[in-house]
Amino acid sequence: MESIKVFAPATVANVACGFDIFGFAVDNPGDEIILRKKVTPGLEIVKIEGDQGRLSLDPEKNTACISMLAYLKHLNANQGISIELRKKMPLGSGLGSSAASSVAGVFALNELMGRPMDQIDLLPFAMEGERFASGTPHADNVAPSLLGGFIAIRSYEPKLDVVKIDTPAELFATIVHPQIEVNTRDARNILRKETSLKNTITQMGNVAGLVAGLMKGDYGLISRSLVDVIIEPVRSILIPGFDEVKHAAIEAGALGCSISGAGPSMFALSKDRDTAKKVGEAMQRAFASVQIESEIYVSSINQNGPVVIG
Amino acid sequence: MESIKVFAPATVANVACGFDIFGFAVDNPGDEIILRKKVTPGLEIVKIEGDQGRLSLDPEKNTACISMLAYLKHLNANQGISIELRKKMPLGSGLGSSAASSVAGVFALNELMGRPMDQIDLLPFAMEGERFASGTPHADNVAPSLLGGFIAIRSYEPKLDVVKIDTPAELFATIVHPQIEVNTRDARNILRKETSLKNTITQMGNVAGLVAGLMKGDYGLISRSLVDVIIEPVRSILIPGFDEVKHAAIEAGALGCSISGAGPSMFALSKDRDTAKKVGEAMQRAFASVQIESEIYVSSINQNGPVVIG
Repeated sequence: MESIKVFAPATVANVACGFDIFGFAVDNPGDEIILRKKVTPGLEIVKIEGDQGRLSLDPEKNTACISMLAYLKHLNANQGISIELRKKMPLGSGLGSSAASSVAGVFALNELMGRPMDQIDLLPFAMEGERFASGTPHADNVAPSLLGGFIAIRSYEPKLDVVKIDTPAELFATIVHPQIEVNTRDARNILRKETSLKNTITQMGNVAGLVAGLMKGDYGLISRSLVDVIIEPVRSILIPGFDEVKHAAIEAGALGCSISGAGPSMFALSKDRDTAKKVGEAMQRAFASVQIESEIYVSSINQNGPVVIG
Repeated sequence: MESIKVFAPATVANVACGFDIFGFAVDNPGDEIILRKKVTPGLEIVKIEGDQGRLSLDPEKNTACISMLAYLKHLNANQGISIELRKKMPLGSGLGSSAASSVAGVFALNELMGRPMDQIDLLPFAMEGERFASGTPHADNVAPSLLGGFIAIRSYEPKLDVVKIDTPAELFATIVHPQIEVNTRDARNILRKETSLKNTITQMGNVAGLVAGLMKGDYGLISRSLVDVIIEPVRSILIPGFDEVKHAAIEAGALGCSISGAGPSMFALSKDRDTAKKVGEAMQRAFASVQIESEIYVSSINQNGPVVIG
């Protein structure tokens, strides 16, 4: 194989109660990457589309390349690769844009190299891109983007422990991306370093409820568990119209609604596609009422992760 | 029906990572209560066995009676009842002694009255006994004692939300009760009111992992999730030999080991009865090495809750 084209999905991290531990993949949006073997060693970015010129062509400043370099170093390989990246999702949107690029890159490279490593073992390399993007190597976007489905990160230390949580087939996600931007580092820096034991207990109860609700297919329990008393109250102040949008989602029939990742995108979960669509329209109208334009994405929970598309 | 005899099981609350939200019932020990209708209104405790004379015969100072009084008040009933309580488990042991009495009392009374209420609706009355015993109306002992099985308390406010978590049939609990006493209020008062966001995330990951592990029957995941970074490090200092006992349990093959409720009893989970027995003996020897006598209880996860035995 001399070249490959891969799609990797966007992801919703945190999922209300599960700050840094929950994330799920969606069918769209996502990123595409094209890798071509070249004779001279090293990585070369030949083109980036869809980033409005904001991403660097320097491989050492690009999340996908940083992940691919970590992978090549691990294999002690010096295959030369030319890279074309098609950002088909907004940057700084809270949809795991950097994670999708990293996953696309490292997954495509592993395929191109003849698949020397198992898919799950690519995770640490994809996380290196996250370290560059946000300062810490989080897995709550890269793990669902790489593995598909709804993922719980049980632990990071001493060993990364990733658990796939079954979800009901009729569960649909709505994502609404408002045309504003929140910097991931800022969104992290406004969080308090301590939380009350009371809120910790409340949050743990919802984490337990959400896992049980998803695995049982109990929509009532899923709905009651989509509550975040620690992060959302702080981060929501960065999103104009947050309360109105959330209220609109619930009124339209969503099981719950919260911030996607560090924001500003907001997500909702619904128990069928029609409801998910109506929820998206209601959320978009609510953003419009505070003069913010937005895009809607509706999708089932993506169970595949990255796929070869050419 | 003029009289009834009921057994209600002891419970292990917290279960390592799930402070205030997790609890499970065991087959033994537990409490027995005998209720007899009497002509004159009011509750009368005629006998308490097994408490070494430590429990009051005053109905307003007895957890079982407080729960029964709350139940009668709710029904606006003034049935006279004479009560015989047989404590078949140690007091102040961290095994939900007060909860077992409350559950036995309110369950027996509901049966005696012709079952006017569903079993799950008895929970708030049983919790009133806990309010008296520990200052707050916790449900992590009363809910599993009343409903059986492994229980997650998703929330207390605005509405109590109790979720039953399926457990693998071959999961066995070992409880070792050392002959020392820890006061529940003290064990609560030494806890910090705040915790780091980092520890909260770690704990949430383990809560998610334990629920998923139990529901999937994934013993490795159960084992890795039986970790408590918030409560155990503080409360374990109240239990002489804690580290040795925990180490002994793990060495003997336990999936995990931590404090039962507020202590001083310690519990372990194992993947079969033989291992659970060996684990108990190893834990007992470890307590003996610090000159503490102890009792061992080995049991599957009790799926029944309270039962009529006469």
